[in-house]
Amino acid sequence: MNLPRTVSWVDGKLVLVDQRRLPDELAFIECDSVESVADAIKSMAVRGAPAIGVAAAFGLAIAAKSGKIEEVRKAADILKSTRPTAINLFWAIERVMRAVESSDDIARAAEEEAIRIMEEDIETNRRIGEIGSSLIEDGMRIMTICNAGSLATVYYGTALAPVYVAWEKGKKLEVIALETRPVLQGARITAFELIHAGIPVKLIVDGAAGYVMKNIGVDLVLVGADRILSDGTVYNKIGTYNLAVLAKRHKVPFYSVAPTSTFDLRSRREDVRIEQRPADEVTKIRGIKIAPEGVDVINPAFDETPPDLLTGIITEKGIIRRPFRRSIKKILGH
Amino acid sequence: MNLPRTVSWVDGKLVLVDQRRLPDELAFIECDSVESVADAIKSMAVRGAPAIGVAAAFGLAIAAKSGKIEEVRKAADILKSTRPTAINLFWAIERVMRAVESSDDIARAAEEEAIRIMEEDIETNRRIGEIGSSLIEDGMRIMTICNAGSLATVYYGTALAPVYVAWEKGKKLEVIALETRPVLQGARITAFELIHAGIPVKLIVDGAAGYVMKNIGVDLVLVGADRILSDGTVYNKIGTYNLAVLAKRHKVPFYSVAPTSTFDLRSRREDVRIEQRPADEVTKIRGIKIAPEGVDVINPAFDETPPDLLTGIITEKGIIRRPFRRSIKKILGH
Repeated sequence: MNLPRTVSWVDGKLVLVDQRRLPDELAFIECDSVESVADAIKSMAVRGAPAIGVAAAFGLAIAAKSGKIEEVRKAADILKSTRPTAINLFWAIERVMRAVESSDDIARAAEEEAIRIMEEDIETNRRIGEIGSSLIEDGMRIMTICNAGSLATVYYGTALAPVYVAWEKGKKLEVIALETRPVLQGARITAFELIHAGIPVKLIVDGAAGYVMKNIGVDLVLVGADRILSDGTVYNKIGTYNLAVLAKRHKVPFYSVAPTSTFDLRSRREDVRIEQRPADEVTKIRGIKIAPEGVDVINPAFDETPPDLLTGIITEKGIIRRPFRRSIKKILGH
Repeated sequence: MNLPRTVSWVDGKLVLVDQRRLPDELAFIECDSVESVADAIKSMAVRGAPAIGVAAAFGLAIAAKSGKIEEVRKAADILKSTRPTAINLFWAIERVMRAVESSDDIARAAEEEAIRIMEEDIETNRRIGEIGSSLIEDGMRIMTICNAGSLATVYYGTALAPVYVAWEKGKKLEVIALETRPVLQGARITAFELIHAGIPVKLIVDGAAGYVMKNIGVDLVLVGADRILSDGTVYNKIGTYNLAVLAKRHKVPFYSVAPTSTFDLRSRREDVRIEQRPADEVTKIRGIKIAPEGVDVINPAFDETPPDLLTGIITEKGIIRRPFRRSIKKILGH
């Protein structure tokens, strides 16, 4: 696919597509300190649960160059504090910390583990794509929110991976991208990467999702996930829950698509902290004021979709279906 | 209430709040030709079904100054072509045309009828407010989309009229305003007018409506209407249908609030044309590009909410409840 590599490791530096500048230009930033990696995650220069996991892993690899385990532990704390909801961040940090804690050469151990996580992400996404593409038939109209595409991962994407595989296999399809306020990842990033890949895409405002299901027709909804609980509850970009409720009314199959690293089998719903982001993401768009001075704002970055609204969860190990609790246990080998 | 008058008739000229410039400034425009009135409606300098009806009536009054019935008929055609969905536009034009066609002094007849429609709008909205306020209890959180407030009418509003009356009666309440992409009437206009009136308001993106119902709680949803059919089908701002589906899932009472002039008893669903607006309303926000060049867009201005999702319709003649077809017939005196 004609898509940029979102995350790379070049000469000991982390190179990221700067997603704040999309769709105006495809620019890259280099991070060579823990602070710059943390800033890139917080400011959403890099975003998407799998991509921020990999970025954080390289943040630790940068800290580990010092050879000091205390530096790496401090870096882990800094990186964990960037964004609270996506579980992949914590999962990747834990993996690198385990590798570091059990090695004498912590610089090498951290770098190797981070590279492994990065390469696994691509492989995982290709498998997700293969598995998920079995659901896509010729001529389908597929709706998605936010960006769970190649730019949310190292490469290839999660929710869009089945679309890419189906397209490569010659199936005709069309994607309906919700613009996804407030940060507009659908308009800025999903539309950008699908156009780049040559796949037909139509952009709509989030409020038009019901209209499109009702008046035009949608065959399949594919969304990503930032965290999935043991009962199948999905945390994903704000607006996902709206979409799931609409899909249920219109009997449109609704799948969350994510690597198994997205599962959090320990937490219950009340343990999950939904990140509340700054008001000016809502009151300003790309720096332009769109609301009166001083208006109060509620700006949750994510919402919670209960399993009764899900048709299934597409992972690299297969499609998880009802009953979710049992199927999740089985597929995760617990 | 500390609210500007949206539509006035001053020395034979139509004076409008220029809503394109909200919330940056409260500016007014003067229209003294049919073309300038039509432009104001098309460009959404004046918007809101009741307000555009009144503006169009004054467009005819301006044309009628010529004393030529052909000029008025031509003006009616121009004004009817501005926006196809809101029925109040056609209703107001028909009223003025009837007055003109049966009078010798067409200038006077048109002006008097337009003034009558304008004054009736204020009176109607006050009655809607009184009737609707009976549904509002102390401490309620009320959700609304778009702007069906004072700025969508001559004065006082439709969906917000019950809020204003309840507030004047000393009830505590809070409004959750959906920003309402693409044109952001919720962020720019509803938030503006509620802050002006001193009523607590919280702004959210449209995608957060489900989150707020689920995680915070909403007691009542009030929306406007651009057209209501004999079976209770409501046409209103894009995103209303999403909200109605969510309200149903969360058992939140969902009311459309509109004067009886909004009813269209002649049309069936297949007769109603849903206005499709330019792509750049979606791809640009206040002139700033937010999507890749050349992306396809679906941009319906309105959607259709079927009566099974409605709790009721609040009008100046009372609250219409199930069975809608019979109740609508009864209240409209047919």
